[in-house]
Amino acid sequence: MTTPEYQPLSSLIWKKDKLEMLDQRLLPETILMLKLYTPEEVWESIHSMKVRGAPAIGIAAAFGVVLGAKSYDGTTVQGWLDHVKSICAHLATSRPTAVNLFWALDRMMQKSNEVVESGLSLDEGNDALEVEALLIQKEDEEVCRMIGENALPLFEDGMGVLTHCNAGGLATAKYGTATAPMYLAQERGIHLKVFADETRPVLQGARLTAFELQQAGIDVTLLCDNMAGMVMSKGWIQAVIVGTDRVAANGDVANKIGTYSVALLAKAHNIPFYVASPLSTIDLSTPSGDLIPIEERAAEEVTEGFGKRTAPQGVKVYNPAFDVTPNEYVTAIITEKGVVRAPFQENLAALFAKEEAEFNESI
Amino acid sequence: MTTPEYQPLSSLIWKKDKLEMLDQRLLPETILMLKLYTPEEVWESIHSMKVRGAPAIGIAAAFGVVLGAKSYDGTTVQGWLDHVKSICAHLATSRPTAVNLFWALDRMMQKSNEVVESGLSLDEGNDALEVEALLIQKEDEEVCRMIGENALPLFEDGMGVLTHCNAGGLATAKYGTATAPMYLAQERGIHLKVFADETRPVLQGARLTAFELQQAGIDVTLLCDNMAGMVMSKGWIQAVIVGTDRVAANGDVANKIGTYSVALLAKAHNIPFYVASPLSTIDLSTPSGDLIPIEERAAEEVTEGFGKRTAPQGVKVYNPAFDVTPNEYVTAIITEKGVVRAPFQENLAALFAKEEAEFNESI
Repeated sequence: MTTPEYQPLSSLIWKKDKLEMLDQRLLPETILMLKLYTPEEVWESIHSMKVRGAPAIGIAAAFGVVLGAKSYDGTTVQGWLDHVKSICAHLATSRPTAVNLFWALDRMMQKSNEVVESGLSLDEGNDALEVEALLIQKEDEEVCRMIGENALPLFEDGMGVLTHCNAGGLATAKYGTATAPMYLAQERGIHLKVFADETRPVLQGARLTAFELQQAGIDVTLLCDNMAGMVMSKGWIQAVIVGTDRVAANGDVANKIGTYSVALLAKAHNIPFYVASPLSTIDLSTPSGDLIPIEERAAEEVTEGFGKRTAPQGVKVYNPAFDVTPNEYVTAIITEKGVVRAPFQENLAALFAKEEAEFNESI
Repeated sequence: MTTPEYQPLSSLIWKKDKLEMLDQRLLPETILMLKLYTPEEVWESIHSMKVRGAPAIGIAAAFGVVLGAKSYDGTTVQGWLDHVKSICAHLATSRPTAVNLFWALDRMMQKSNEVVESGLSLDEGNDALEVEALLIQKEDEEVCRMIGENALPLFEDGMGVLTHCNAGGLATAKYGTATAPMYLAQERGIHLKVFADETRPVLQGARLTAFELQQAGIDVTLLCDNMAGMVMSKGWIQAVIVGTDRVAANGDVANKIGTYSVALLAKAHNIPFYVASPLSTIDLSTPSGDLIPIEERAAEEVTEGFGKRTAPQGVKVYNPAFDVTPNEYVTAIITEKGVVRAPFQENLAALFAKEEAEFNESI
């Protein structure tokens, strides 16, 4: 039995004069589309995690640049370029770990430079940036679908699959990264039994992954993070798949806090640990994971994350938003261009070299 | 620098006609002492986790028997014995995993039989049960102190120590089991840097362990459960110590859900994993951990544990309250009679044989 292609909630919808953004902090109880008119509003939305997920952050930032470029009130193209540059620089400070943010801003900056070099007018420049942002969004959907296609052969009917955090449709333009094979499996009548870690402190697994998979009719069971090991020991899990905020050149993987523990537990139970990653999330300029900056967030996310205080006043809290999983725990990195296995240093470099060669051939 | 012996909140205070019980579900925001007058109220308090922690559950149950025995409205000693027996049987159904519950009820039942065999009056019988329950409580305090004494040589000034759930003073008569070396270290000027897993879903680590250690002036940092692996990888943890709800004859350890994961993570980082356990928690009649019944609790603990729904309506949830850590991950079990290491089967049996021989010599 197959089901129709799923039509998910979109986390980001472009409406010419504004960016509509699903406030993911309010899910699953409230579905609210915010209307953002300025890059400052986009910055705040990324910073406060109204939008989250590495690809979605990149897309939101790109539209933030479009909104900012349109607000330029000078008359010279050079002034416009300086204005766009300062907007990009500011948006880059919204969150430190996800590399897609910097990747999307670089791409918008590059397009802005092209606009100036091509002698386009300000209106044409603004249009070009808008097209570029829409292209980033459209490409992301296609990239996610291809990640799903490449991942799907690793999954078999009846398998138990554990995921951590939300690398789902809400984190991307559509399909998600880690969830892409789940959605494709569902469309093709392959039954996967998904276990979703709730993912403290912000509960992206409970609020977002369980929600979007349930909406799509996928068999999903919610777990507390500390239950993953027990569930593995019961033999219920045949594969783990997660997304990532940044992959280093050596294959070390930064992802939501707790991913490292899941990877170690998977290894201890001989369960493959897959990382779904667009090429845009792989950062060859970062040699290894220990060089990836790890964002630390406010104690209140841990102590009063549910509208009610659940820890003593004044208690010390350590609240890193991400951790780094060393490449030795990674079975494969699944990209839109294929599945990469160890040795990751060589194989990731080769994948990018091939990409570049194909790109050069095509122009 | 040493600090005075700590004077903690007591989770259970006997007041002749009633048992005063700290409602641990309301901590740390509200300190409420419940007044319980009947065994049924004690049953409900154990079942709903107003009192929790294996030793405290045993103590509460013992006082429940005293309250029940006093309410006997017949006139024959045999009728009184049957009445006590039915109260014990009922209290035994309040929670399935912690062996101290059954241990304490057995002891109360044994005392009841002695009362009848000795030809005591009903009033004398009730007094004897009251003395026995108070003795269980008093002994638990001493047992915990001795666990602390035996554990303390394993800890050094400046060490980072991770614990999971609450095996603290609130879980016992005083000192706790896993926390006993922390309190003794504090009294003797030895500085330990404690990391407390918050322990989803019920947050005993955040609400209880962080609270009671902070109250005692101990250096404690709160973590989400999924951060333990990362903190270990940073080299911040030199030892893990947890309590237990039941130790099987082969040294397998049932404890709060998530303990198994912590044990595997400790092993992967070459960190010793200690289990603090009174002899009353060691159940030689259970050969191995897979035979320990694991309580599954309501989905709502996971989906709306904070007074607010944090997961989609109708989502499937798996919510085991405990897991079992196989003996191979246990570095040592620390009892009031000494530190037991592998092979646990032999060494636990030998400890109990020695205990029995000493007991027989003393009578």
